[in-house]
Amino acid sequence: MGIKVERITKKFGKKVILADINLALEPNRIYGLLGRNGAGKSTLLNIMSDRIFPTKGAVLLDDVPVHENDAQLGKLYLMSEVNLYPKRSRVRELFKTTKTMYGNFNEPYAEKLCGAFGLSQKARFGQLSTGYRTIFKLIVALCVPADYVFLDEPILGLDANHRELFYRELMESYGEHPRTFVISTHIIEEVANMIEHVFIVENGKILIDDDVDHMLAQAYLITGPADKVAAYTQGLNVIGTESLGNLKGNYVFGELNNDREIPDTVQISRMDLQKLFIHLTSEEVSHED
Amino acid sequence: MGIKVERITKKFGKKVILADINLALEPNRIYGLLGRNGAGKSTLLNIMSDRIFPTKGAVLLDDVPVHENDAQLGKLYLMSEVNLYPKRSRVRELFKTTKTMYGNFNEPYAEKLCGAFGLSQKARFGQLSTGYRTIFKLIVALCVPADYVFLDEPILGLDANHRELFYRELMESYGEHPRTFVISTHIIEEVANMIEHVFIVENGKILIDDDVDHMLAQAYLITGPADKVAAYTQGLNVIGTESLGNLKGNYVFGELNNDREIPDTVQISRMDLQKLFIHLTSEEVSHED
Repeated sequence: MGIKVERITKKFGKKVILADINLALEPNRIYGLLGRNGAGKSTLLNIMSDRIFPTKGAVLLDDVPVHENDAQLGKLYLMSEVNLYPKRSRVRELFKTTKTMYGNFNEPYAEKLCGAFGLSQKARFGQLSTGYRTIFKLIVALCVPADYVFLDEPILGLDANHRELFYRELMESYGEHPRTFVISTHIIEEVANMIEHVFIVENGKILIDDDVDHMLAQAYLITGPADKVAAYTQGLNVIGTESLGNLKGNYVFGELNNDREIPDTVQISRMDLQKLFIHLTSEEVSHED
Repeated sequence: MGIKVERITKKFGKKVILADINLALEPNRIYGLLGRNGAGKSTLLNIMSDRIFPTKGAVLLDDVPVHENDAQLGKLYLMSEVNLYPKRSRVRELFKTTKTMYGNFNEPYAEKLCGAFGLSQKARFGQLSTGYRTIFKLIVALCVPADYVFLDEPILGLDANHRELFYRELMESYGEHPRTFVISTHIIEEVANMIEHVFIVENGKILIDDDVDHMLAQAYLITGPADKVAAYTQGLNVIGTESLGNLKGNYVFGELNNDREIPDTVQISRMDLQKLFIHLTSEEVSHED
């Protein structure tokens, strides 16, 4: 059961966007798909939803390829930055269109969400601000009967209140009717408590495929006098470092050495998911395009 | 000394965007300008930079009106979402144009920042992704010789690493060469430690004009059994509430009653700036436009 991404490669001309990606999504889980700008996250989500086609490889849902398979594609929904909706159409009409396409749509919930977010169902899509376009797409994503919902930058242009409202509604909706969500966002701190499992994409490859709890259990910040910190973290997997005068902080990802004594002046604390992500992916590369 | 915004009103047709706004910016401070989507923040920054004109009122810099005054406007810089740059121009050429306009430009620092962010000076503006357009504009904002720099949504499209790099560079640049920054952002959590003073704009009016420390010193979350929390917070300024079964959390902004005994089962904790903002501005209104 679930989605399997098998050996997906995607090239645009000579440029390799995704290189031999393998991953699996189980039913009823919440995943985070993280990566730097240009890492290939959106391309991957578009391939998983059959909106663009891979150069090699396949995406299977319950062991059946999704490619050009309407029955399988009806179980997936991708909310993306791209605005595919006709500008003249009203919100209410677009809900109806979605219902026709997906065979069902949670209209009472859509109505409730429109009220909560302050979105008028009479408004035309083309008249909505960036924030309200996002809100419209989020409402559709929460109300379609898809078993796998992919959210690409779901909070673009949302103010703090609307973000909090969205996170709350997502968790409530998930609680009442479990299904799989994949959330791709740059505001990692705010989703860290919701996601159970994380994929980090780096330069078109999967760098990390792990449960969040398991990852964070091996993410440490070691601080203290520079020499003591250097000695204590020698041979460990130091993924980043910061200095402040004679003080040093080394970010370690992996096991500590339990045989090693911790000097009194050295502190060990935890890293949160956003910090861990930053240090795992901190190599600066030029990728304007 | 400083900027004075005096009785600024702005109407578009019959719609009042800003209503009689008064505020003052001192030299060498970092301000946050916060507000819901559509509250009027961008309009205010545009008026302060004389890019759009108020219906009533004036903006003074060191007691001289900025309107159509090139000498005064040369001391201000607005980085906004709008892309005013010719698409064919290269980054390097745009730096030169800025230098001509402002009479000076910190070229060595711009070069260093291009390296740190991975922005090629040969790239044409029109070829840059959303994230790299933001990066380009941030670099200009940090390198112009303006005494007052207004940053409207400075982290739009930036991944977590680039956001952290920007915050660090902003603080270093400010430390070396103090000047005034006004940061308008929806990602409040990440700037809360940098800003000293905050303006919250709500429906075209200034709702809050206060130092961050002073605000947070009177921002509390009172949690415990619903009846105990209700009794303890009675008569206090409760700005929000959350429930979990029989437990309740009341967000209080203002003085607590020190004469009142705190029941053992009731906990008092602090609210961070983003939470405080959310609860101060939580009235849901429809403002698609």
